[in-house]
Amino acid sequence: MDQLNLKKLAKELNLAVSTVSRALRDSHEIKKETKERVKALAEKMGYQPNFHASSLRQNKSMTIALIVPEVENIFFAEAINGVESIAQKKGYHVLIYLTHDDHEREKSILQLLRSGRVDGLMISIASTSVNFDHLRAASESGIPMVLFDRICEELDVPKVTTDDEEISFKATTHLLENGCKKVALLCMEEQLSISALRKKGYLRALDAYDNKEPLVIVNSSSDEDANRQSIREMLSGENRPDAVFAAVEKLAINAYEVCRELGLRIPEDLKVIGFSNLSASNLFSPALTTIHQPAFEMGRDSADILFKLIDKKTLLPQETNIELPSILQVRASAG
Amino acid sequence: MDQLNLKKLAKELNLAVSTVSRALRDSHEIKKETKERVKALAEKMGYQPNFHASSLRQNKSMTIALIVPEVENIFFAEAINGVESIAQKKGYHVLIYLTHDDHEREKSILQLLRSGRVDGLMISIASTSVNFDHLRAASESGIPMVLFDRICEELDVPKVTTDDEEISFKATTHLLENGCKKVALLCMEEQLSISALRKKGYLRALDAYDNKEPLVIVNSSSDEDANRQSIREMLSGENRPDAVFAAVEKLAINAYEVCRELGLRIPEDLKVIGFSNLSASNLFSPALTTIHQPAFEMGRDSADILFKLIDKKTLLPQETNIELPSILQVRASAG
Repeated sequence: MDQLNLKKLAKELNLAVSTVSRALRDSHEIKKETKERVKALAEKMGYQPNFHASSLRQNKSMTIALIVPEVENIFFAEAINGVESIAQKKGYHVLIYLTHDDHEREKSILQLLRSGRVDGLMISIASTSVNFDHLRAASESGIPMVLFDRICEELDVPKVTTDDEEISFKATTHLLENGCKKVALLCMEEQLSISALRKKGYLRALDAYDNKEPLVIVNSSSDEDANRQSIREMLSGENRPDAVFAAVEKLAINAYEVCRELGLRIPEDLKVIGFSNLSASNLFSPALTTIHQPAFEMGRDSADILFKLIDKKTLLPQETNIELPSILQVRASAG
Repeated sequence: MDQLNLKKLAKELNLAVSTVSRALRDSHEIKKETKERVKALAEKMGYQPNFHASSLRQNKSMTIALIVPEVENIFFAEAINGVESIAQKKGYHVLIYLTHDDHEREKSILQLLRSGRVDGLMISIASTSVNFDHLRAASESGIPMVLFDRICEELDVPKVTTDDEEISFKATTHLLENGCKKVALLCMEEQLSISALRKKGYLRALDAYDNKEPLVIVNSSSDEDANRQSIREMLSGENRPDAVFAAVEKLAINAYEVCRELGLRIPEDLKVIGFSNLSASNLFSPALTTIHQPAFEMGRDSADILFKLIDKKTLLPQETNIELPSILQVRASAG
């Protein structure tokens, strides 16, 4: 299409195709008047430079990729908005890829992106990713890369995270200080960086309160029915917990659903705290105590760092590892 | 990078660059043994064909674009999953663009996509779009296109929608049959196709019940504080409504928030029905009666039709205008 349009333009102007092409690229080899004539007609004829041809010439795609596990979780929706707030200022487009927490899919996306489709990428790792060779290979191929939220510690690329361990310590402490004797942790696959840190914060709080009964329920990232069933079993047992700390939003929602089903009252029979950026969690019955993550800001800072890498700027030491604080929003569900 | 890699490969194999290139493209001009040698080394050296160069040769990007107003709304998150379910089977990648309901941004994305970046596009129109010249121009440029959910009736491209008018009629009727005398409609910019249809269904129901008091509050797509304020004024007045029908999820949430603030009880003082695909709306206090839209299915069918256009298949008459039914999920908030 590029060639066709160029040819048509050249014919109309009675000029060589190469002259028209150089005029459109503002080459100094072409006279000012000729350039003006070419540009005026190009605009009139609605000339569209072919994207792939332009990219090859400039060696820039003006596109960055954002690879996230899902968008049903409002956390990622907000992070995307943060990324876009920076990309738009830079005149860049954001290509969003979803892995659906599937390691193989993540590998294939990374493979694809190594072929020059984008100028840089940001990624939050799939929960099923057990090795990171694909990320290492992409990084070694020279593509600018930033990890955010779900990271891989060993990889030598900038990282943007939140204080998962500290805020989990704080949330668990809140439950213990409100008289809870047995706090269960509902979490996801433990190989995930954020799962490991949230668990660490939870265990550290139990330890600080001489509470010897950790109860960790590991859930699936995709099978909600199985998750409800394991929560059901936990809450039906004799020695059931008097509080749950849900390390991801949907597990807090599942806990509410199961309590309703079993006739357990929140917070009287069970106190609940969950990670969640859902504004509607304030409308739950009762209102859910949440850990609110700085999702927009994490997306924004990730994009900011990525553009510094793309522009070959030197990062300050504190820019290679950014940690933004989360907030505990106490509401009725935690007593 | 493409050239560099090819050169390295050629040097290593002691072959011409053109021979290596043709071998990798499986050209019949190259001997089988040579092809095997080239491919084996290419794999060993981690050769990556340059994406833009390959796209130019094949004239295919293996990418489709999905343009949506936002992803905070779970409707669009589910629609994206529907699109991806089809794209993945076809070996395509989905490039997601957000307009943030900004007409100018939508125009610039459409302009960009006309330059061959994608093989086809699906779009749900921004609420601030008052003219559709940019869509018409893109369609006339020959790029395969499908409109979904928020459409433009006049445009001669396939459309995938849900039964907005019918389900709004049903929801309003439900409120009237439950004894409501004054049902307010909370909606968005009226130029939007779905807003117009939802209003039409609402008015038709009032008419069928000889209810002469339509009360339509038009809200902003971006300013939540302003929306809360207009709901506050409506519910503080003397002649306040006894029911609201919210044509978008966030307005139902705003109505709940304002009721809480003013001490109004749902459903006793005010009955509420809202469009929403949020599974957590079942946990609201009280549980929200919702209109659940077939978001995943709408995304899936849009992608399905788009690939038929890309593959130059002829569409059946019923495939140019697909309407999928929404479901009214009655819960406590509507009495």
